[in-house]
Amino acid sequence: MSEAVLKYLEDNRESLLKKMENFLSIPSVSTDSSNKQDVLKAADFVANYLKEIGFHSVEIKETAGHPLVYAEWLEEKDAQTALFYGHYDVQPADPYELWDSEPFQPEIRNGRIFARGASDDKGQVFMHLAVFEAYMKTEGRLPMNLKVCIEGEEEIGSENLYPFLEDHKDKLTSDFAIISDSGMVEKGQPTMLYGLKGFTGLEFHVQGPNRDLHSGLYGGAVKNPAMAMSHLLASLKNPDEYVTVPGFYDDVEKLADEERAMMNQAPGENYTESIGIPETMPEKGFTVNEHLMARPTLEINGLTSGYQGQGTKTIIPSTASAKITCRLVPGQDPQKIQDLLVDYIENNAPKGVSVSVKREPLSAKAYKVDPNHPLLQKAADNLADAFGKDTVFVRLGGSIPVVESIDQMFGIPVVLLGFGTPEDNLHSPNESFPLDHFDKGMEVLVKYYRDVAYLEK
Amino acid sequence: MSEAVLKYLEDNRESLLKKMENFLSIPSVSTDSSNKQDVLKAADFVANYLKEIGFHSVEIKETAGHPLVYAEWLEEKDAQTALFYGHYDVQPADPYELWDSEPFQPEIRNGRIFARGASDDKGQVFMHLAVFEAYMKTEGRLPMNLKVCIEGEEEIGSENLYPFLEDHKDKLTSDFAIISDSGMVEKGQPTMLYGLKGFTGLEFHVQGPNRDLHSGLYGGAVKNPAMAMSHLLASLKNPDEYVTVPGFYDDVEKLADEERAMMNQAPGENYTESIGIPETMPEKGFTVNEHLMARPTLEINGLTSGYQGQGTKTIIPSTASAKITCRLVPGQDPQKIQDLLVDYIENNAPKGVSVSVKREPLSAKAYKVDPNHPLLQKAADNLADAFGKDTVFVRLGGSIPVVESIDQMFGIPVVLLGFGTPEDNLHSPNESFPLDHFDKGMEVLVKYYRDVAYLEK
Repeated sequence: MSEAVLKYLEDNRESLLKKMENFLSIPSVSTDSSNKQDVLKAADFVANYLKEIGFHSVEIKETAGHPLVYAEWLEEKDAQTALFYGHYDVQPADPYELWDSEPFQPEIRNGRIFARGASDDKGQVFMHLAVFEAYMKTEGRLPMNLKVCIEGEEEIGSENLYPFLEDHKDKLTSDFAIISDSGMVEKGQPTMLYGLKGFTGLEFHVQGPNRDLHSGLYGGAVKNPAMAMSHLLASLKNPDEYVTVPGFYDDVEKLADEERAMMNQAPGENYTESIGIPETMPEKGFTVNEHLMARPTLEINGLTSGYQGQGTKTIIPSTASAKITCRLVPGQDPQKIQDLLVDYIENNAPKGVSVSVKREPLSAKAYKVDPNHPLLQKAADNLADAFGKDTVFVRLGGSIPVVESIDQMFGIPVVLLGFGTPEDNLHSPNESFPLDHFDKGMEVLVKYYRDVAYLEK
Repeated sequence: MSEAVLKYLEDNRESLLKKMENFLSIPSVSTDSSNKQDVLKAADFVANYLKEIGFHSVEIKETAGHPLVYAEWLEEKDAQTALFYGHYDVQPADPYELWDSEPFQPEIRNGRIFARGASDDKGQVFMHLAVFEAYMKTEGRLPMNLKVCIEGEEEIGSENLYPFLEDHKDKLTSDFAIISDSGMVEKGQPTMLYGLKGFTGLEFHVQGPNRDLHSGLYGGAVKNPAMAMSHLLASLKNPDEYVTVPGFYDDVEKLADEERAMMNQAPGENYTESIGIPETMPEKGFTVNEHLMARPTLEINGLTSGYQGQGTKTIIPSTASAKITCRLVPGQDPQKIQDLLVDYIENNAPKGVSVSVKREPLSAKAYKVDPNHPLLQKAADNLADAFGKDTVFVRLGGSIPVVESIDQMFGIPVVLLGFGTPEDNLHSPNESFPLDHFDKGMEVLVKYYRDVAYLEK
């Protein structure tokens, strides 16, 4: 039944690629005000494409920043309704000199299309639009209802997306959300991402003497702020990578044996090769995959104190400070964890110095959807069919704030159908996207939109 | 018997002050090659003064760097022979804009003479020369034998002094050394400095992944180098300020109750006021004075890792590093302590990272002379007489490398007769020296040189 749709994509591959290249050629760098017109041009491209395809009520919604494009097609009365989210803005391309071809003149080499946004996220957004086109051109309709929301500020924090979602909650209500803004664990390895970590953080400042002191004249009278900080930091996590702040793990959802087994099936990175470490260090009692995907973390992101230049300067530094962030798992409340950390640090501040804590204002809850949900199982099947390999189910240590927002606001499953690969160089020079993932990804989408259209709600 | 000598100093105070001002006017900044001629001019000043007074074999000794001035007066056959050491070079004067008067145009304000070098060390060297002059002019001879060695590279490490001492060991051999290049614990508080701490140090580098990593994508697989460093640093010293590296205290000379009592008589600084700390933190079981003067210390001088800018950057840093120095007490061998520290750090390097240690090449042994030695007791009496207050006996947490060298090379007591005050701003803008210390200090020197001339050898 989908053969005609797939054939349309095959027959029109060249023109679709050309069209995607036009989209990628627009330098829609959201952070750079000198690209404001380009950002608008990219919004126009998306809106016009949706209109051409036959979407209804296509609108370029103005915001306090860059606009977002909204469109609907709601003609399949009893079918599922999906909220398709993506973004048309991109990261800056500099340093330009490190690109092998122009970032905004897409070039195909070695089976990959090289351009800023090829993977993140214009290329993956385009795949959905092309699939919608293929359905419309062959069947005159989409297999299910769609609400499309493509924003222009993802790379600068989606500041204006959240109020928009909040203000149009009723209008946007859907049965599930679908997002293609992520990737697979390996090229060609079908991957279902069913969970993300949450986030909280803080920094603290240790104030000792009001100036750097001569270590000979004051050593023995004065608590060294760098040593005070070291004692405090060392007491946050033990050498088994277990966070020793009381209460930190209290609300962590227990990891079922079945899920642990599933996580351990995902292929692991060769860390010695990729990042040059002598050995991996997961939490005692957990594998690397388990810790990466399902156990919370506490990391020192940076610290500083005293003299850092060449040679020796025999001082007792006046101050020391450290930045800390945590990745959280389902069950943990970011606010509660931040409170625990702040209380711990304040209550355990060494004598002889004063410690002040600054809370990181941003936070996120972890996100997780049941990997056995039919919406995910179907996607996994479609991926396995197209890529000829069993799908692995993974959770990710990172956060995708929009996923958490959709989860919080709408309480609907979010299907993360990412087609990127680890070699895509997101946010770096020579971003690219593999063309076989382009082809097979569209095949997945064609089948998926049809297969889940009449799933029981 | 010394009345005439003292009267000479009183009668000639104006011209002596004028002469000292001439000496202080020479910008003998040893570190700045553009001042090379000025440095030579200061050496000439010292040599000419010694010749005028009547010293024999006055020589400006060329070295690989700035010259040193050597002179002898050895006419008092059976008397003691003192090696008088000082330096005629000074620290740079910048930042000039922070001086209230020109650093090389001495100015007298509020009972102090302001000029670079007024206290460190040209002013104090001049006091000895003026006392020698007073003796020669009134009695035609000095009360004891003197070997004078005034160098021009103290502020840049005395690199060429040590080979000179070594090469002229026999010629320089004396019964004791006398140095006025230090100060009193408070203005007007006679102070005998009878011990200095030694020194050793190192820095270590913790290498984690070969680049900063995304804390979400790698947190749980990778040992955080900043946390590894914190654990290592925290294990060097406990919250009681006790150094926990095995063997660190093994060779520390036991502190006699009598000496502890003596140390605690020295007035302490009001640290809350002077440096703004909430409370002092000496090693458990010791007072601040005891720790400052007689217990070894281990200080973190600086550390660095990862992101230190504004806001948050969610990384696992690639590296972390720390600089550490120790102040050592009599009994401790700097090389042995450095070995202990290096071994400890290497043997306790956390798993998952690699730790490399770089040894600080400079080191010094602690110095101590028996405070009951007649040479010190006599100085204490002379100080008490001149300043009208009992002399306190102290040891200092800092090092004076030349003292250690003289101790090692000649095995003679070093009498540290320092007349400076804590308010002298050594190495800082507005260096000054109090004129009443100039007057009373010369009185001390007049009496001291006579009183110890025929001490039993």
